Amino acid sequence: MSNFGFTDLALVNPYEVAFREARSAVGAAALLRNAVEYPTLADAVADCSLVVGTTALGHRELKHSLRRIEYGGRLLRKHLASERAALLFGSEKFGLANEDLSFCHWLMRIPTRDEHQSMNLGQAVAICLFELMRNPKEAARKPAAIRKAKVKDLDLMTERLLEILAHSGYFEEPSSASTTEKVRRLIRRMDLNSHDADVWLGMLRQIRWKLDAPR
Amino acid sequence: MSNFGFTDLALVNPYEVAFREARSAVGAAALLRNAVEYPTLADAVADCSLVVGTTALGHRELKHSLRRIEYGGRLLRKHLASERAALLFGSEKFGLANEDLSFCHWLMRIPTRDEHQSMNLGQAVAICLFELMRNPKEAARKPAAIRKAKVKDLDLMTERLLEILAHSGYFEEPSSASTTEKVRRLIRRMDLNSHDADVWLGMLRQIRWKLDAPR
Repeated sequence: MSNFGFTDLALVNPYEVAFREARSAVGAAALLRNAVEYPTLADAVADCSLVVGTTALGHRELKHSLRRIEYGGRLLRKHLASERAALLFGSEKFGLANEDLSFCHWLMRIPTRDEHQSMNLGQAVAICLFELMRNPKEAARKPAAIRKAKVKDLDLMTERLLEILAHSGYFEEPSSASTTEKVRRLIRRMDLNSHDADVWLGMLRQIRWKLDAPR
Repeated sequence: MSNFGFTDLALVNPYEVAFREARSAVGAAALLRNAVEYPTLADAVADCSLVVGTTALGHRELKHSLRRIEYGGRLLRKHLASERAALLFGSEKFGLANEDLSFCHWLMRIPTRDEHQSMNLGQAVAICLFELMRNPKEAARKPAAIRKAKVKDLDLMTERLLEILAHSGYFEEPSSASTTEKVRRLIRRMDLNSHDADVWLGMLRQIRWKLDAPR
Protein backbone atom coordinates (compact mmCIF):
# COMPACT_ATOMS: atom_id res chain seq x y z
CA MET A 1 0.00 0.00 0.00
CA SER A 2 2.74 2.39 0.98
CA ASN A 3 4.77 1.65 -2.16
CA PHE A 4 1.88 2.67 -4.37
CA GLY A 5 0.58 5.60 -2.32
CA PHE A 6 -2.56 4.10 -0.76
CA THR A 7 -3.02 5.37 2.78
CA ASP A 8 -6.33 4.16 4.22
CA LEU A 9 -6.11 0.67 5.66
CA ALA A 10 -9.35 -0.51 7.28
CA LEU A 11 -9.40 -3.72 9.30
CA VAL A 12 -12.30 -5.88 10.38
CA ASN A 13 -11.60 -8.52 13.00
CA PRO A 14 -7.86 -8.70 12.20
CA TYR A 15 -5.80 -11.69 13.27
CA GLU A 16 -3.91 -9.86 16.00
CA VAL A 17 -0.64 -11.76 15.80
CA ALA A 18 -0.10 -11.18 12.07
CA PHE A 19 -1.21 -7.58 12.29
CA ARG A 20 1.26 -6.72 15.05
CA GLU A 21 4.08 -8.36 13.11
CA ALA A 22 3.23 -6.29 10.08
CA ARG A 23 3.66 -3.12 12.11
CA SER A 24 7.39 -3.54 11.66
CA ALA A 25 7.22 -3.39 7.84
CA VAL A 26 9.99 -1.12 6.55
CA GLY A 27 8.74 2.33 5.55
CA ALA A 28 5.09 1.62 6.21
CA ALA A 29 5.01 2.41 9.94
CA ALA A 30 2.83 5.52 9.53
CA LEU A 31 0.31 3.68 7.38
CA LEU A 32 -0.02 0.86 9.91
CA ARG A 33 -0.22 3.28 12.83
CA ASN A 34 -3.12 5.03 11.10
CA ALA A 35 -4.95 1.80 10.23
CA VAL A 36 -8.49 1.85 11.61
CA GLU A 37 -10.20 -1.18 13.06
CA TYR A 38 -13.97 -1.47 12.50
CA PRO A 39 -16.45 -3.72 14.31
CA THR A 40 -18.17 -4.79 11.06
CA LEU A 41 -17.55 -4.76 7.34
CA ALA A 42 -20.59 -2.49 6.87
CA ASP A 43 -18.94 0.11 9.11
CA ALA A 44 -15.63 -0.17 7.28
CA VAL A 45 -17.08 0.54 3.85
CA ALA A 46 -19.91 2.93 4.84
CA ASP A 47 -18.15 6.00 3.40
CA CYS A 48 -17.39 4.45 0.01
CA SER A 49 -19.54 4.68 -3.09
CA LEU A 50 -18.09 1.52 -4.64
CA VAL A 51 -17.09 -1.71 -2.92
CA VAL A 52 -15.12 -4.27 -4.92
CA GLY A 53 -14.41 -7.73 -3.53
CA THR A 54 -11.50 -9.91 -4.57
CA THR A 55 -11.77 -13.63 -5.10
CA ALA A 56 -9.93 -16.57 -6.59
CA LEU A 57 -12.16 -17.99 -9.28
CA GLY A 58 -13.71 -21.32 -8.34
CA HIS A 59 -15.52 -22.99 -5.41
CA ARG A 60 -18.24 -20.50 -4.78
CA GLU A 61 -21.29 -20.24 -6.91
CA LEU A 62 -20.87 -16.58 -7.72
CA LYS A 63 -23.91 -14.34 -7.65
CA HIS A 64 -21.89 -11.31 -8.74
CA SER A 65 -20.28 -9.85 -11.82
CA LEU A 66 -16.73 -11.18 -11.76
CA ARG A 67 -14.20 -9.07 -13.64
CA ARG A 68 -10.60 -9.79 -14.58
CA ILE A 69 -8.21 -7.32 -12.98
CA GLU A 70 -7.24 -5.72 -16.32
CA TYR A 71 -10.85 -4.63 -16.89
CA GLY A 72 -11.93 -4.24 -13.25
CA GLY A 73 -8.83 -2.17 -12.54
CA ARG A 74 -9.83 0.24 -15.27
CA LEU A 75 -13.30 0.69 -13.76
CA LEU A 76 -11.83 1.19 -10.29
CA ARG A 77 -9.31 3.77 -11.55
CA LYS A 78 -12.11 5.70 -13.20
CA HIS A 79 -14.16 5.66 -9.99
CA LEU A 80 -11.20 6.67 -7.82
CA ALA A 81 -10.61 9.76 -9.94
CA SER A 82 -13.55 11.44 -8.20
CA GLU A 83 -14.94 9.15 -5.47
CA ARG A 84 -13.95 6.78 -2.70
CA ALA A 85 -13.89 3.04 -3.31
CA ALA A 86 -13.08 0.08 -1.07
CA LEU A 87 -11.07 -2.89 -2.30
CA LEU A 88 -11.84 -5.89 -0.09
CA PHE A 89 -9.53 -8.79 0.71
CA GLY A 90 -10.50 -11.79 2.81
CA SER A 91 -8.31 -13.87 5.05
CA GLU A 92 -5.47 -15.71 3.34
CA LYS A 93 -6.97 -19.07 4.25
CA PHE A 94 -10.67 -18.66 3.49
CA GLY A 95 -11.04 -15.53 1.38
CA LEU A 96 -14.20 -13.46 1.71
CA ALA A 97 -17.31 -15.11 3.14
CA ASN A 98 -20.59 -15.02 1.23
CA GLU A 99 -21.89 -12.42 3.68
CA ASP A 100 -18.86 -10.22 2.96
CA LEU A 101 -19.40 -10.62 -0.79
CA SER A 102 -23.00 -9.42 -0.43
CA PHE A 103 -21.64 -5.96 0.46
CA CYS A 104 -19.78 -5.74 -2.85
CA HIS A 105 -20.95 -4.05 -6.03
CA TRP A 106 -18.88 -6.47 -8.06
CA LEU A 107 -15.91 -8.82 -7.77
CA MET A 108 -12.44 -8.80 -9.25
CA ARG A 109 -9.99 -11.64 -9.83
CA ILE A 110 -6.33 -11.99 -10.75
CA PRO A 111 -6.01 -14.55 -13.54
CA THR A 112 -3.83 -17.45 -12.35
CA ARG A 113 -3.03 -20.99 -13.43
CA ASP A 114 -6.10 -23.19 -12.96
CA GLU A 115 -3.99 -25.60 -10.91
CA HIS A 116 -2.88 -22.88 -8.50
CA GLN A 117 -5.50 -20.20 -7.95
CA SER A 118 -5.05 -19.42 -4.28
CA MET A 119 -2.63 -16.51 -3.83
CA ASN A 120 -0.55 -15.15 -1.01
CA LEU A 121 -2.53 -12.24 0.46
CA GLY A 122 0.26 -9.65 0.39
CA GLN A 123 1.11 -10.53 -3.21
CA ALA A 124 -2.53 -10.29 -4.30
CA VAL A 125 -2.83 -6.86 -2.67
CA ALA A 126 0.42 -5.69 -4.29
CA ILE A 127 -0.73 -6.79 -7.76
CA CYS A 128 -4.15 -5.14 -7.40
CA LEU A 129 -2.71 -1.83 -6.20
CA PHE A 130 0.03 -1.82 -8.83
CA GLU A 131 -2.64 -2.40 -11.48
CA LEU A 132 -4.36 0.77 -10.26
CA MET A 133 -1.13 2.82 -10.51
CA ARG A 134 0.08 1.18 -13.68
CA ASN A 135 0.32 3.48 -16.67
CA PRO A 136 -0.75 1.68 -19.86
CA LYS A 137 0.85 4.41 -21.95
CA GLU A 138 4.26 3.47 -20.55
CA ALA A 139 4.06 0.10 -22.31
CA ALA A 140 4.21 1.83 -25.67
CA ARG A 141 6.59 4.60 -24.70
CA LYS A 142 9.89 4.64 -26.52
CA PRO A 143 12.78 4.54 -24.05
CA ALA A 144 14.94 7.63 -23.69
CA ALA A 145 17.15 7.89 -26.75
CA ILE A 146 20.66 6.59 -26.19
CA ARG A 147 23.16 8.35 -28.43
CA LYS A 148 24.32 5.74 -30.92
CA ALA A 149 27.92 5.54 -32.11
CA LYS A 150 28.71 7.53 -35.24
CA VAL A 151 29.73 5.71 -38.38
CA LYS A 152 33.16 7.35 -38.41
CA ASP A 153 33.89 5.70 -35.03
CA LEU A 154 32.62 2.34 -36.25
CA ASP A 155 34.87 2.65 -39.30
CA LEU A 156 37.84 3.52 -37.09
CA MET A 157 37.11 0.45 -34.96
CA THR A 158 36.85 -1.72 -38.07
CA GLU A 159 40.18 -0.43 -39.32
CA ARG A 160 41.97 -0.95 -36.01
CA LEU A 161 40.55 -4.42 -35.49
CA LEU A 162 41.63 -5.40 -39.02
CA GLU A 163 45.18 -4.17 -38.31
CA ILE A 164 45.31 -6.10 -35.05
CA LEU A 165 43.97 -9.28 -36.64
CA ALA A 166 46.43 -9.04 -39.52
CA HIS A 167 49.28 -8.35 -37.10
CA SER A 168 48.22 -11.34 -34.99
CA GLY A 169 48.16 -13.66 -37.98
CA TYR A 170 44.39 -14.17 -37.92
CA PHE A 171 44.52 -13.64 -41.70
CA GLU A 172 47.11 -12.65 -44.27
CA GLU A 173 47.92 -9.02 -45.07
CA PRO A 174 46.56 -7.16 -46.90
CA SER A 175 43.07 -8.30 -45.89
CA SER A 176 40.72 -9.28 -48.69
CA ALA A 177 37.62 -7.23 -49.47
CA SER A 178 35.41 -10.02 -48.12
CA THR A 179 37.29 -10.07 -44.80
CA THR A 180 37.00 -6.30 -44.47
CA GLU A 181 33.27 -6.52 -45.12
CA LYS A 182 32.86 -9.35 -42.62
CA VAL A 183 34.52 -7.30 -39.87
CA ARG A 184 32.60 -4.16 -40.84
CA ARG A 185 29.30 -6.02 -40.47
CA LEU A 186 30.48 -7.63 -37.22
CA ILE A 187 31.17 -4.19 -35.73
CA ARG A 188 27.82 -2.81 -36.83
CA ARG A 189 25.94 -5.72 -35.29
CA MET A 190 27.40 -4.70 -31.92
CA ASP A 191 24.88 -1.85 -32.05
CA LEU A 192 27.18 0.32 -29.94
CA ASN A 193 26.31 3.54 -28.22
CA SER A 194 28.67 6.45 -28.47
CA HIS A 195 30.28 5.90 -25.05
CA ASP A 196 30.96 2.20 -25.62
CA ALA A 197 32.46 2.90 -29.06
CA ASP A 198 34.96 5.22 -27.34
CA VAL A 199 35.82 2.48 -24.84
CA TRP A 200 36.36 -0.03 -27.65
CA LEU A 201 38.52 2.41 -29.60
CA GLY A 202 40.69 2.90 -26.52
CA MET A 203 41.08 -0.82 -25.95
CA LEU A 204 41.92 -1.50 -29.60
CA ARG A 205 44.44 1.35 -29.66
CA GLN A 206 46.19 -0.11 -26.63
CA ILE A 207 46.28 -3.63 -28.08
CA ARG A 208 47.70 -2.36 -31.37
CA TRP A 209 50.33 -0.39 -29.46
CA LYS A 210 51.35 -3.48 -27.51
CA LEU A 211 51.54 -5.55 -30.71
CA ASP A 212 53.70 -2.89 -32.38
CA ALA A 213 55.99 -2.45 -29.37
CA PRO A 214 59.47 -3.95 -29.58
CA ARG A 215 59.81 -7.11 -27.47
CA MET B 1 5.76 -18.17 -9.58
CA SER B 2 3.41 -21.10 -9.29
CA ASN B 3 0.32 -18.88 -9.58
CA PHE B 4 1.48 -17.55 -12.90
CA GLY B 5 2.98 -20.73 -14.33
CA PHE B 6 6.70 -20.06 -13.99
CA THR B 7 8.57 -23.23 -13.06
CA ASP B 8 12.33 -22.65 -13.05
CA LEU B 9 13.56 -21.16 -9.80
CA ALA B 10 17.36 -20.72 -9.66
CA LEU B 11 19.04 -19.77 -6.40
CA VAL B 12 22.48 -18.36 -5.75
CA ASN B 13 23.69 -18.36 -2.16
CA PRO B 14 20.17 -18.45 -0.69
CA TYR B 15 19.56 -17.45 2.89
CA GLU B 16 18.89 -20.98 4.16
CA VAL B 17 16.39 -20.17 6.89
CA ALA B 18 14.03 -18.18 4.67
CA PHE B 19 14.32 -20.68 1.86
CA ARG B 20 13.36 -23.64 4.05
CA GLU B 21 10.39 -21.75 5.42
CA ALA B 22 9.23 -21.02 1.89
CA ARG B 23 9.16 -24.74 1.13
CA SER B 24 5.89 -24.92 2.97
CA ALA B 25 4.15 -22.44 0.62
CA VAL B 26 0.70 -23.78 -0.26
CA GLY B 27 0.53 -25.34 -3.72
CA ALA B 28 4.11 -24.52 -4.68
CA ALA B 29 5.84 -27.55 -3.14
CA ALA B 30 6.84 -29.05 -6.51
CA LEU B 31 8.32 -25.78 -7.72
CA LEU B 32 10.41 -25.38 -4.57
CA ARG B 33 11.50 -29.03 -4.64
CA ASN B 34 12.77 -28.51 -8.20
CA ALA B 35 14.57 -25.24 -7.42
CA VAL B 36 18.23 -25.48 -8.40
CA GLU B 37 21.01 -23.94 -6.37
CA TYR B 38 23.99 -22.57 -8.33
CA PRO B 39 27.45 -21.65 -6.99
CA THR B 40 27.55 -18.36 -8.93
CA LEU B 41 25.21 -16.03 -10.75
CA ALA B 42 27.10 -16.68 -14.00
CA ASP B 43 26.25 -20.39 -13.70
CA ALA B 44 22.62 -19.67 -12.92
CA VAL B 45 22.02 -17.58 -16.05
CA ALA B 46 24.41 -19.35 -18.44
CA ASP B 47 21.58 -20.94 -20.47
CA CYS B 48 19.62 -17.74 -20.98
CA SER B 49 19.88 -15.37 -23.92
CA LEU B 50 18.53 -12.40 -21.97
CA VAL B 51 19.20 -11.45 -18.35
CA VAL B 52 17.09 -8.69 -16.81
CA GLY B 53 17.88 -7.30 -13.38
CA THR B 54 15.36 -5.65 -11.08
CA THR B 55 16.09 -2.58 -9.03
CA ALA B 56 14.41 0.13 -7.02
CA LEU B 57 15.29 3.42 -8.67
CA GLY B 58 17.72 5.49 -6.64
CA HIS B 59 21.03 5.14 -4.74
CA ARG B 60 23.12 3.47 -7.35
CA GLU B 61 24.63 5.34 -10.23
CA LEU B 62 23.15 3.19 -12.92
CA LYS B 63 25.29 2.18 -15.84
CA HIS B 64 22.43 0.32 -17.51
CA SER B 65 19.28 1.00 -19.46
CA LEU B 66 16.57 1.16 -16.81
CA ARG B 67 13.07 0.38 -18.05
CA ARG B 68 9.70 0.77 -16.37
CA ILE B 69 7.94 -2.57 -15.96
CA GLU B 70 5.16 -1.67 -18.43
CA TYR B 71 7.74 -1.31 -21.24
CA GLY B 72 10.31 -3.82 -19.98
CA GLY B 73 7.60 -6.41 -19.46
CA ARG B 74 6.62 -6.09 -23.10
CA LEU B 75 10.22 -6.68 -24.22
CA LEU B 76 10.55 -9.67 -21.89
CA ARG B 77 7.26 -11.19 -23.10
CA LYS B 78 8.44 -10.89 -26.68
CA HIS B 79 11.74 -12.58 -25.86
CA LEU B 80 10.08 -15.37 -23.86
CA ALA B 81 7.91 -16.28 -26.84
CA SER B 82 10.91 -18.02 -28.40
CA GLU B 83 13.88 -17.93 -26.01
CA ARG B 84 14.88 -18.30 -22.37
CA ALA B 85 15.31 -15.23 -20.20
CA ALA B 86 16.32 -14.79 -16.58
CA LEU B 87 14.64 -12.28 -14.30
CA LEU B 88 16.98 -11.44 -11.43
CA PHE B 89 16.02 -10.39 -7.92
CA GLY B 90 18.49 -9.44 -5.20
CA SER B 91 18.16 -9.91 -1.47
CA GLU B 92 15.30 -8.05 0.17
CA LYS B 93 17.68 -5.94 2.20
CA PHE B 94 20.39 -4.97 -0.30
CA GLY B 95 19.02 -5.71 -3.76
CA LEU B 96 21.43 -6.75 -6.48
CA ALA B 97 25.11 -5.88 -6.07
CA ASN B 98 26.94 -3.97 -8.79
CA GLU B 99 28.70 -7.20 -9.78
CA ASP B 100 25.32 -8.93 -10.20
CA LEU B 101 24.06 -6.02 -12.29
CA SER B 102 27.03 -6.36 -14.64
CA PHE B 103 25.59 -9.71 -15.79
CA CYS B 104 22.35 -8.04 -16.90
CA HIS B 105 21.46 -6.88 -20.41
CA TRP B 106 19.21 -4.23 -18.92
CA LEU B 107 17.32 -3.37 -15.76
CA MET B 108 13.64 -3.12 -14.91
CA ARG B 109 11.87 -1.22 -12.15
CA ILE B 110 8.39 -1.12 -10.67
CA PRO B 111 7.29 2.51 -10.37
CA THR B 112 6.62 3.32 -6.72
CA ARG B 113 6.17 6.43 -4.58
CA ASP B 114 9.44 8.34 -4.34
CA GLU B 115 9.15 8.23 -0.56
CA HIS B 116 8.84 4.46 -0.47
CA GLN B 117 10.76 2.71 -3.21
CA SER B 118 11.99 -0.41 -1.44
CA MET B 119 9.56 -3.28 -1.97
CA ASN B 120 8.88 -6.56 -0.28
CA LEU B 121 10.68 -9.21 -2.35
CA GLY B 122 7.72 -11.59 -2.76
CA GLN B 123 5.44 -8.74 -3.79
CA ALA B 124 7.95 -7.42 -6.34
CA VAL B 125 8.28 -10.90 -7.87
CA ALA B 126 4.49 -11.32 -7.97
CA ILE B 127 4.01 -7.99 -9.75
CA CYS B 128 6.74 -8.70 -12.31
CA LEU B 129 5.41 -12.17 -13.15
CA PHE B 130 1.81 -10.97 -13.30
CA GLU B 131 2.90 -8.24 -15.70
CA LEU B 132 4.30 -10.96 -17.98
CA MET B 133 1.02 -12.91 -17.92
CA ARG B 134 -1.21 -9.87 -18.02
CA ASN B 135 -3.35 -9.56 -21.13
CA PRO B 136 -3.62 -5.92 -22.23
CA LYS B 137 -6.56 -6.80 -24.46
CA GLU B 138 -8.58 -7.77 -21.38
CA ALA B 139 -8.55 -4.15 -20.22
CA ALA B 140 -10.66 -3.14 -23.21
CA ARG B 141 -12.80 -6.27 -23.34
CA LYS B 142 -16.51 -5.76 -22.77
CA PRO B 143 -17.73 -7.94 -19.92
CA ALA B 144 -20.03 -10.84 -20.72
CA ALA B 145 -23.47 -9.46 -21.54
CA ILE B 146 -25.89 -9.60 -18.63
CA ARG B 147 -29.48 -9.87 -19.81
CA LYS B 148 -31.11 -6.57 -18.95
CA ALA B 149 -34.70 -6.32 -17.75
CA LYS B 150 -37.28 -5.80 -20.46
CA VAL B 151 -39.24 -2.57 -20.56
CA LYS B 152 -42.55 -4.37 -19.98
CA ASP B 153 -41.20 -5.60 -16.62
CA LEU B 154 -39.96 -2.13 -15.71
CA ASP B 155 -43.40 -0.72 -16.56
CA LEU B 156 -45.09 -3.39 -14.43
CA MET B 157 -42.78 -2.47 -11.54
CA THR B 158 -43.56 1.21 -12.00
CA GLU B 159 -47.30 0.50 -11.95
CA ARG B 160 -47.12 -1.68 -8.82
CA LEU B 161 -44.91 0.74 -6.94
CA LEU B 162 -47.29 3.61 -7.78
CA GLU B 163 -50.24 1.58 -6.45
CA ILE B 164 -48.39 0.76 -3.23
CA LEU B 165 -47.29 4.36 -2.70
CA ALA B 166 -50.81 5.68 -3.30
CA HIS B 167 -52.24 3.02 -1.00
CA SER B 168 -49.67 3.95 1.69
CA GLY B 169 -50.54 7.64 1.50
CA TYR B 170 -47.19 8.67 0.00
CA PHE B 171 -49.22 10.79 -2.45
CA GLU B 172 -52.88 11.31 -3.28
CA GLU B 173 -54.73 9.12 -5.76
CA PRO B 174 -54.89 9.25 -8.70
CA SER B 175 -51.18 10.01 -9.10
CA SER B 176 -50.28 13.03 -11.21
CA ALA B 177 -48.46 12.64 -14.51
CA SER B 178 -45.31 14.15 -13.01
CA THR B 179 -45.33 11.64 -10.14
CA THR B 180 -45.74 8.76 -12.56
CA GLU B 181 -42.82 10.03 -14.63
CA LYS B 182 -40.68 10.48 -11.52
CA VAL B 183 -41.21 6.86 -10.49
CA ARG B 184 -40.73 5.61 -14.04
CA ARG B 185 -37.33 7.32 -14.23
CA LEU B 186 -36.43 6.07 -10.73
CA ILE B 187 -37.07 2.48 -11.79
CA ARG B 188 -35.03 2.86 -14.98
CA ARG B 189 -32.06 4.26 -13.09
CA MET B 190 -31.94 1.00 -11.13
CA ASP B 191 -30.45 -0.48 -14.30
CA LEU B 192 -31.90 -3.89 -13.42
CA ASN B 193 -31.03 -7.19 -14.99
CA SER B 194 -33.81 -9.54 -15.90
CA HIS B 195 -33.43 -11.76 -12.81
CA ASP B 196 -33.47 -8.84 -10.36
CA ALA B 197 -36.55 -7.32 -12.05
CA ASP B 198 -38.37 -10.62 -11.40
CA VAL B 199 -37.32 -10.51 -7.73
CA TRP B 200 -38.57 -6.91 -7.41
CA LEU B 201 -41.89 -7.75 -9.09
CA GLY B 202 -42.40 -10.58 -6.62
CA MET B 203 -41.61 -8.37 -3.62
CA LEU B 204 -43.92 -5.59 -4.83
CA ARG B 205 -46.73 -8.06 -5.51
CA GLN B 206 -46.45 -9.37 -1.96
CA ILE B 207 -46.42 -5.88 -0.42
CA ARG B 208 -49.51 -4.85 -2.42
CA TRP B 209 -51.28 -8.04 -1.37
CA LYS B 210 -50.51 -7.32 2.30
CA LEU B 211 -51.73 -3.72 1.95
CA ASP B 212 -54.97 -4.90 0.29
CA ALA B 213 -55.58 -7.66 2.83
CA PRO B 214 -58.33 -7.07 5.40
CA ARG B 215 -56.93 -6.25 8.86
